[in-house]
Amino acid sequence: MKVIKSLSAMQSAAQRWKREGLRIGFVPTMGYLHEGHISLVRRAREEVGTEGVVVLSIYVNPTQFAPTEDLAKYPRDFARDRALCRDAGVDVIFAPDDAKMYAGRADGEYSTWVEEDQLTRGMEGVSRPTHFRGVTTVVAKLFNLVLPDVAVFGAKDYQQAAVLRRMVKDLNFPIQMVVAPTLREADGLAMSSRNKYLDAEHRREALALSRLLVEARKLVREKPGGITVEKLRGRLETVASGYPLARLDYMEFFDPETLVPVNLVRRGHRMALAMFLGKTRLIDNGSL
Amino acid sequence: MKVIKSLSAMQSAAQRWKREGLRIGFVPTMGYLHEGHISLVRRAREEVGTEGVVVLSIYVNPTQFAPTEDLAKYPRDFARDRALCRDAGVDVIFAPDDAKMYAGRADGEYSTWVEEDQLTRGMEGVSRPTHFRGVTTVVAKLFNLVLPDVAVFGAKDYQQAAVLRRMVKDLNFPIQMVVAPTLREADGLAMSSRNKYLDAEHRREALALSRLLVEARKLVREKPGGITVEKLRGRLETVASGYPLARLDYMEFFDPETLVPVNLVRRGHRMALAMFLGKTRLIDNGSL
Repeated sequence: MKVIKSLSAMQSAAQRWKREGLRIGFVPTMGYLHEGHISLVRRAREEVGTEGVVVLSIYVNPTQFAPTEDLAKYPRDFARDRALCRDAGVDVIFAPDDAKMYAGRADGEYSTWVEEDQLTRGMEGVSRPTHFRGVTTVVAKLFNLVLPDVAVFGAKDYQQAAVLRRMVKDLNFPIQMVVAPTLREADGLAMSSRNKYLDAEHRREALALSRLLVEARKLVREKPGGITVEKLRGRLETVASGYPLARLDYMEFFDPETLVPVNLVRRGHRMALAMFLGKTRLIDNGSL
Repeated sequence: MKVIKSLSAMQSAAQRWKREGLRIGFVPTMGYLHEGHISLVRRAREEVGTEGVVVLSIYVNPTQFAPTEDLAKYPRDFARDRALCRDAGVDVIFAPDDAKMYAGRADGEYSTWVEEDQLTRGMEGVSRPTHFRGVTTVVAKLFNLVLPDVAVFGAKDYQQAAVLRRMVKDLNFPIQMVVAPTLREADGLAMSSRNKYLDAEHRREALALSRLLVEARKLVREKPGGITVEKLRGRLETVASGYPLARLDYMEFFDPETLVPVNLVRRGHRMALAMFLGKTRLIDNGSL
């Protein structure tokens, strides 16, 4: 396994693999890897085969964090990430640095952004207004540096995956997008690098997110004709009240393709939610 | 020479050339070709060599025209373009259509834009507020479809070339950008597909653009210490008054790299201008 930090070295390697006819599978991450990331690596390997190249990037992208958010304290542990990648069969870790990724940004010499203006309107786009512009921009950059045939994203960031899929289609990136299922802890909490922030008490109450998804699914399936959002919200707020430390940021019910909110929720629609556990903000989503 | 209209056929061909180790040279145009375009084709050929592939795209991109502009009447002559391309040694004409390039746009299913927010602020960005967003977006799309190693743009659209160069750097496209010199008619008028709009009288007065550039250069070179923009503008307005049919849209003096306007104009700075000849809007620029 190789670690590449230089942008031009990464791009030249990718161009060489292309000339050699090797397929490139790509898993972009912000590091502090967990089993969820590793499942994406396994999926990338399945896609490109043993002869293919699997690249995992580790880059805590500053442009997707608002000034008030957790950029500075976002957890990092490169030595541990490296060991996990080696065990998982990653071929190349691409770990660029800010000074290169956004060269000249402080002097106004970085000035190009990729923006998706439909799917980013709700949910995370409301709670984190500049977030998706940072995500689409950095992923476009990473795509141009790693030149993947297949890119694998986790379903936990469902809206992000939808936005990136749209970006790939709209901008004609020659890339197959794969969205792999969310991995969960034994009690149901979706795996996330941010789970590390939780103390024991908040960790217990973080269960609220997956519990609300399970309850919502049950309620929707009890009503084959659909249940109104008002009624569903009411029932779920009762459930949420059992988790006094968990503060709801948003809870939305929407069409899984367009992300447009629905009023009558039926099986096949999707639910996404964000909650604060103290200062830690967690998200989750699931099919209903 | 081959004509490709399908996006996926273009992209597959490009991917095949990459695997075969062929270099791809790319000249994006809106068609209605003239000698200026052909000079870009020749430059692309020099860059990729006889074994390389030269692709010229013909696409009148709707998203770079404002509703008030000349999209519908923009001149088109595919048969003539095809003959010119064959004579010039183009290997592939890529001629996609709107329905494919912006699939689903009327239904909100096209939603991703590339925006450059520094170099687009002045000049054409003021006169045509949504123009550059359309240009950067369509060129990003074309780059992903044609996968060029080298792309050649004309210096007549100087600001556009600067914006696209910035986009390539910022988004890490693995593409070498070449900006080739403006070709001119015998009397000095910069070649442009829009020159076709001019009747004999306006054609005569269209000379104002190149004449102002020549005069500006002379005035600047007479003052090695620099000349103020006010003084230079005053002198040039006198020159312009000799062309009563030519109405000035803007005339700017700026740093050739940053496009930031200067107050004291010296040799090496650049001038750009736009003028209306009746309803026809023409641009030109040059080094001072």
